[in-house]
Amino acid sequence: MAHGGGGRLMQQLIEEIFVKAFRNPLLEQRHDGAVFDVGGVRLAFTTDSYVVRPLFFPGGDIGTLAVNGTVNDLSMCGAKPRWLSAAFIIEEGLPIDTLRQVAASMQRAAAEADVQLVTGDTKVVDKGKGDGVFITTAGVGVISQRRTVAPSEVRPGDAVLVSGDLGRHGMAIMSVREGLKFETTIESDCANLGPMVQDLLDAGLKIHCLRDLTRGGLAAGLNEIAQASNLQIHVEESSVPVGEEVRGACEILGLDPLYVANEGRMVAFLPADETNRALDLIRAHSHGAQARRIGTVLDELPGKVTLRSSIGATRFLDLLSGEQLPRIC
Amino acid sequence: MAHGGGGRLMQQLIEEIFVKAFRNPLLEQRHDGAVFDVGGVRLAFTTDSYVVRPLFFPGGDIGTLAVNGTVNDLSMCGAKPRWLSAAFIIEEGLPIDTLRQVAASMQRAAAEADVQLVTGDTKVVDKGKGDGVFITTAGVGVISQRRTVAPSEVRPGDAVLVSGDLGRHGMAIMSVREGLKFETTIESDCANLGPMVQDLLDAGLKIHCLRDLTRGGLAAGLNEIAQASNLQIHVEESSVPVGEEVRGACEILGLDPLYVANEGRMVAFLPADETNRALDLIRAHSHGAQARRIGTVLDELPGKVTLRSSIGATRFLDLLSGEQLPRIC
Repeated sequence: MAHGGGGRLMQQLIEEIFVKAFRNPLLEQRHDGAVFDVGGVRLAFTTDSYVVRPLFFPGGDIGTLAVNGTVNDLSMCGAKPRWLSAAFIIEEGLPIDTLRQVAASMQRAAAEADVQLVTGDTKVVDKGKGDGVFITTAGVGVISQRRTVAPSEVRPGDAVLVSGDLGRHGMAIMSVREGLKFETTIESDCANLGPMVQDLLDAGLKIHCLRDLTRGGLAAGLNEIAQASNLQIHVEESSVPVGEEVRGACEILGLDPLYVANEGRMVAFLPADETNRALDLIRAHSHGAQARRIGTVLDELPGKVTLRSSIGATRFLDLLSGEQLPRIC
Repeated sequence: MAHGGGGRLMQQLIEEIFVKAFRNPLLEQRHDGAVFDVGGVRLAFTTDSYVVRPLFFPGGDIGTLAVNGTVNDLSMCGAKPRWLSAAFIIEEGLPIDTLRQVAASMQRAAAEADVQLVTGDTKVVDKGKGDGVFITTAGVGVISQRRTVAPSEVRPGDAVLVSGDLGRHGMAIMSVREGLKFETTIESDCANLGPMVQDLLDAGLKIHCLRDLTRGGLAAGLNEIAQASNLQIHVEESSVPVGEEVRGACEILGLDPLYVANEGRMVAFLPADETNRALDLIRAHSHGAQARRIGTVLDELPGKVTLRSSIGATRFLDLLSGEQLPRIC
């Protein structure tokens, strides 16, 4: 189970088996999607399976996630998302109405993101061999700007921005699962990051790398980029935006918000002197209101993420070896 | 359960929910994949989930299927398959060695089909909420020839060819599940149809439509095309190639080989006067040795498939309303 949570065990599993078996330069980009050229057109291609439990949660459902997640992965490659596929693995006995609701959510999310669901598949498995419905989406997007947006482009001195407050998605799911009640319901941050990314690119900002923060939260996203770029990422804990309800829920459940999943948050790496312009553009979006600069890229400890806590001590922000929140997406 | 077998119930479910929710012209092509243009390049895009049980069977495994199935869907659109994604939903407790074997099969099949596995995802679900491993592949291919290969291109008078003997994949799976022993092991026909399709297109044959015969077998494939083209497809039962072992196994299990799944067989629609040239090209491939012309397109009973039996009676070859072979792919 620990292999699925976005922590170190899963990374090792993927490394060891899939990256080794399928070895090729595109896979080794270690990006949210593969980027390749065909007849002079630059495309991004990505896939994700969604196994979230429960299927419906405050702020979204598995259908919203399945569309926004894949759309966001394409946006993180600097692509405009265009076409989506959707494959459903349905457990026998799932109410048809549930499926209908999920399909409606997907269509709404697709319309909002201006993408088309163009091809699909349905499989049914026997009761007890699935869990309601699993959805796998794949997406194709078109990269029209010249800039390469990838971990390999990150440079020492880059500012690290986060597009909003962290941990809402994970805590929305956990609150439902654990039956926790707070004064205000924590809603998932599940959202399409495409328009925000488009604004940054259109403004001509020198975006070096983008990464949406999903499983494993900020810690997983930053560690992946630190490793892929072979640079150090240094974070000021006091700058990391976390809402009061999320902080409270994390304390009750003994979780660290920096490791909690998001579904509508990203980090952006760009030259430090472009920080303010970028933050202004991000904050113009409703889900970007809490955007902050949280850190800086250094080259002293290659592949490592360091965190200076609010009391001034600096430690490694490592990947978790095990599972914090299973089946969060 | 009946909704997953490729029969009428499933078609209705898909119709009703997904096609209605996601309504757009590309989805309404009712093809094995979506075909669209981007910057003057014509692409095909498709996806399928694989939930076959058992994971390993004579002639292949879930990994071989997951690559060849998606590669074949692209080939059926007249595309050259190029890039694949692979998303794994792994049940907790699956032996790592099983995963390694499946990954190795995928890599072999990808190398044979000259495609790259460029992006992927891994999710782990709790024991009892999955079944070993489910794999969803999506694929992108490039269409370089001018011809549209699609159900809409089928014309009255077209010859209907089948690329080989039918029912091997389904009966290979069923033999393992039911513990049947025959004098010779029935091996799945699982294969990459790409090179065969390429030969037909390269020869300049006027291929109107191609369809690989998977779930629901020949009957499902022909019914889909009869409906999508609004034409009648007439089949001579005595011309349909079925091997002795498959025929025997079907009799024991009470199955009709025309409804049994294949994973390396296709039907081709083209002008009748090109039949012999096409058959020669197909038979030059080892898995095309049994290729035959099995019927003709008519316009008398639009949307229907008719079958003249070996004793001379003609009946409708309808879709099954329920499930013949669950979890066959």
